[in-house]
Amino acid sequence: MIENAGIPEYTVVIVGAGIAGLKAAAELHSAGIEKCVVLEARSRPGGRLLQVESSVFPERRYDLGASWHHDTLTNELFAEELRLPEAERAGYVFDDGPATIVNPAGRRLDGDFELRLEALQRELEQYIENRYFESLEAKDMPFFEVVMSYLYERRGVLTDAQIQQLPGVVRFLEFWHAIDWKLLSGKLSEVENNGRNAFVLNYDKLLRRVESGVPREWIRLGTEVAKVERVKDTVHVTTADGARYVSKCAIITVPQSVLELSLKSEPLPGRIEFRPPLNDNITTAFERAHYASLGKIFFEFDRCTWSTQRSRIEIAAKVPDDLCMHVRNAQDLQQLLHIARAQTEVKLGEDCFDFPHEFENMAALAGIPTLIGFTQTPLTEHVERLSKQEIVDYFKPALKTALRALGCEEECLFDLDNTLPQDGSHPGPILKNIIFNPWSQDVYSRGAYTGSYVDDDQLPLVVALNNGQDSRIRFAGEHTVMEGSGCTYGAWESGRREAQYVLEYLRRFPVARPQDGKKQ
Amino acid sequence: MIENAGIPEYTVVIVGAGIAGLKAAAELHSAGIEKCVVLEARSRPGGRLLQVESSVFPERRYDLGASWHHDTLTNELFAEELRLPEAERAGYVFDDGPATIVNPAGRRLDGDFELRLEALQRELEQYIENRYFESLEAKDMPFFEVVMSYLYERRGVLTDAQIQQLPGVVRFLEFWHAIDWKLLSGKLSEVENNGRNAFVLNYDKLLRRVESGVPREWIRLGTEVAKVERVKDTVHVTTADGARYVSKCAIITVPQSVLELSLKSEPLPGRIEFRPPLNDNITTAFERAHYASLGKIFFEFDRCTWSTQRSRIEIAAKVPDDLCMHVRNAQDLQQLLHIARAQTEVKLGEDCFDFPHEFENMAALAGIPTLIGFTQTPLTEHVERLSKQEIVDYFKPALKTALRALGCEEECLFDLDNTLPQDGSHPGPILKNIIFNPWSQDVYSRGAYTGSYVDDDQLPLVVALNNGQDSRIRFAGEHTVMEGSGCTYGAWESGRREAQYVLEYLRRFPVARPQDGKKQ
Ligand SMILES: Cc1cc2nc3c(=O)[nH]c(=O)nc-3n(C[C@H](O)[C@H](O)[C@H](O)COP(=O)(O)OP(=O)(O)OC[C@H]3O[C@@H](n4cnc5c(N)ncnc54)[C@H](O)[C@@H]3O)c2cc1C
Ligand SMILES: Cc1cc2nc3c(=O)[nH]c(=O)nc-3n(C[C@H](O)[C@H](O)[C@H](O)COP(=O)(O)OP(=O)(O)OC[C@H]3O[C@@H](n4cnc5c(N)ncnc54)[C@H](O)[C@@H]3O)c2cc1C
Repeated sequence: MIENAGIPEYTVVIVGAGIAGLKAAAELHSAGIEKCVVLEARSRPGGRLLQVESSVFPERRYDLGASWHHDTLTNELFAEELRLPEAERAGYVFDDGPATIVNPAGRRLDGDFELRLEALQRELEQYIENRYFESLEAKDMPFFEVVMSYLYERRGVLTDAQIQQLPGVVRFLEFWHAIDWKLLSGKLSEVENNGRNAFVLNYDKLLRRVESGVPREWIRLGTEVAKVERVKDTVHVTTADGARYVSKCAIITVPQSVLELSLKSEPLPGRIEFRPPLNDNITTAFERAHYASLGKIFFEFDRCTWSTQRSRIEIAAKVPDDLCMHVRNAQDLQQLLHIARAQTEVKLGEDCFDFPHEFENMAALAGIPTLIGFTQTPLTEHVERLSKQEIVDYFKPALKTALRALGCEEECLFDLDNTLPQDGSHPGPILKNIIFNPWSQDVYSRGAYTGSYVDDDQLPLVVALNNGQDSRIRFAGEHTVMEGSGCTYGAWESGRREAQYVLEYLRRFPVARPQDGKKQ
Repeated sequence: MIENAGIPEYTVVIVGAGIAGLKAAAELHSAGIEKCVVLEARSRPGGRLLQVESSVFPERRYDLGASWHHDTLTNELFAEELRLPEAERAGYVFDDGPATIVNPAGRRLDGDFELRLEALQRELEQYIENRYFESLEAKDMPFFEVVMSYLYERRGVLTDAQIQQLPGVVRFLEFWHAIDWKLLSGKLSEVENNGRNAFVLNYDKLLRRVESGVPREWIRLGTEVAKVERVKDTVHVTTADGARYVSKCAIITVPQSVLELSLKSEPLPGRIEFRPPLNDNITTAFERAHYASLGKIFFEFDRCTWSTQRSRIEIAAKVPDDLCMHVRNAQDLQQLLHIARAQTEVKLGEDCFDFPHEFENMAALAGIPTLIGFTQTPLTEHVERLSKQEIVDYFKPALKTALRALGCEEECLFDLDNTLPQDGSHPGPILKNIIFNPWSQDVYSRGAYTGSYVDDDQLPLVVALNNGQDSRIRFAGEHTVMEGSGCTYGAWESGRREAQYVLEYLRRFPVARPQDGKKQ
């Protein structure tokens, strides 16, 4: 049934009030566009930028979503912040001091003259580059398999200790990709930073600044969009409770994970039905694009009795005791892969050392006695379903190891129920609370950001989304860029990009084009 | 005057018995070629591979030329060694443990949580990559200027201490390129290692192995080549003392620095006159190719009283005290460059801290109480003209700093004339001797290896030399490859390449081609 398009009431409807949607709105506003609306499902703007105040220590503020400026050499959002008077910008502190690395037994692994794991890590990166960048046909494989191939091929020049310790250490990049090494693409595993990382204190201030460029009345919170329909020269955007917004153009900024629901027919929360359905380029490209879940857990201690001269502690994942023997004795790579895969099979939530750990020391970064722990897919999805007490029980050994590596000499205590005496009689730090946001359970994020599984290629999806559903239905968000993919600044840039596109489009075609919307 | 070509007595004449020439000869021999000759100007084979025995400590052996296997992930010469039984291969020890870095005042700079020079060095690399690899038109400039531009552009995010300490530290790459930062190409300054570096103990064994593939009677030592002439289907190679070798093909492996003499007319030692002259492609390409001088000085101590848990000590170059102020106050980059250039002007040989220093600790690598120091162009050329005592006097402060950084608590003494009592009454190490080879003064090397000056591009020369002077006059050597350029394994590969070329050529044209040599 073809409806009548009617007179568009809005120039642009923006779906989603994350940083991409807000930036797009602010650009449109500053270009003089008058009738816009930003429809946001949640009861707050910001999306995956989310600051909370601790309930136990009210002076502590945490970013539960993004907390770093990445790629600060080329990050334009960071550059914009730097141009502001200091009082107006979000504070930041560079977070790239040397990390302390230990294994589950507490043995120090970084800077070791015999082990030389840093040199081996550089060589492994080079190995991967040689494998994939010199030959386009090279088959992708899980990062796990790439590591095993490296050990196997180089066993002639590796010591037993190196073979035993390296695999536990190279897994730290799982936190960047937010994916376990058996799922992570080997080909795309290299972390390429364009400049230093800065820890933001806090992102909220930046969010408020971008938001302040948007007229208050444009933003409609608690307004979930359920349908986006192209009708002649207009776009009809319908909310879950049936309200309809008729506009000339729409910019859809829902996360990739939510957008993907549009390919299926089940009516899940957040899902948008497109009419006509998402075009073929977009649909096909989704086959090679995945979403990953970074988990961020804030472990709040009552006091800091550890070093503030290290901002990061990394604990290598456990490596099977006889891995080295298998590497040395394997007849061929397939045999090694077979054995190693079985040996490293894990049950989620059983032993925290089955996974690598990384803790940010907020005492060093912000003077707050809180450690931030991280998890990756599929551990994140598991952990988010646990109770706070269960999470603490799971992380206990890793927390203890991390604190010891940070020079904390006293045993730490765990007191989520606040039953220990408050008299300061215990010499060590006491864990009082943990805070996190279940991003993977959250129906409006369904994970954290785009991530690379084996055989993935984000480029086709980025190209397809940049071309839009058509000239009036556009896409923005962290999943629609290559530079800054997954990042706040990438999302922000994409909002600006689509606002510019729409402005140019409306300038060139101020009235309906005869051929436009013909198919409806 | 056109001479008669005559019947070639030799199938191939090889000029130079370095690793390139020897490898070429060995390949030809193993392919069954019977009449070859290798003409070598020096009284020994090996060229820039040169082992000597210490005159003071006869049990110590040093490689005065090459001493590392570079790029061991892809280095085929290293791979070949690995396939040999251990007794047959040259020993090696990986040399990539963490380095200790200090400044001239002895302050430890590596792993510093406040300074974070490692993070800044990575960012600087990225900065250079962005500048040159994203835009092909970007103008090259000295590495010195790139560093100053970085400091200037990023001063908003750098601390005073970082601005003061970084320039002294980034200069360590001068030792890789063997060129001072004011001459070194910024564009080509990045060091790309394809795998770890291994220190060879010693290269001599490897050299002997390659040499053993060449019939003893093929090698003519003390035979300097003065002329290479194409005469019809033959090549006439004439030595400085007038002997003539008539051959089907010739492979010229003299270093780039020696080959360059052929472009000029002065009859300098080592110079080869080509008839007809070197072709235009080669001649033109020389305009963008330079040669650099690495100096390697072996400082021999009587005993080791320092740590063997570090194989490398780096001392940052002196930075003008008020550089930071100038970086902060500069109106524009040009002003800063002007000031900084004047401030960092140096008189060679005056203050050793005007240059960065790098010492290899042979006590850690080989159990020998010797430190290896390095110099770069133009310091090498200066130092090679000094007496041993003058060299020691110049290096004294750096040696003392290095030994202290290595944990040596006793004052070291300097005793080249051997006048101190030998009774062991002095608690610290005593420098007894230094050893080095004046490669830049040596007429058959005239430097160390190819290096990148501002605006250089090695590729055209490599391409031109790979195409040869013509189909019968070929080139090999470290300057004729892109992968392994400047390296032993690159030279070795090039010898194999040209042997294969000649074999293929002679197979396809066993008798003279009618059009071949037409121009003569
Ligand atoms: C735990 C975590 C840590 C991270 N760390 C970093 C970091 O350190 N640095 C960094 O740069 N980036 C980081 N990121 C990524 C960064 O947060 C995102 O890239 C960025 O915030 C995405 O912005 P966006 O506008 O594209 O999407 P979003 O912020 O997700 O905005 C999309 C909006 O659409 C809304 N929406 C969804 N469905 C509907 C619907 N049907 N109708 C209406 N509205 C809808 C959502 O509620 C949301 O507000 C992190 C993310 C997470 C989750
Ligand atoms: C100080 C120093 C340190 C180095 N360190 C390393 C290192 O650690 N690792 C590494 O891989 N590489 C290193 N190199 C480089 C390495 O030594 C060279 O790349 C390699 O040895 C070059 O081999 P070649 O056969 O191309 O040239 P050469 O070894 O120079 O051989 C050319 C031969 O030609 C002869 N010759 C010259 N003119 C004439 C003539 N007119 N007639 C007849 N013969 C002539 C020469 O005497 C010489 O024997 C270093 C070099 C130097 C100088």
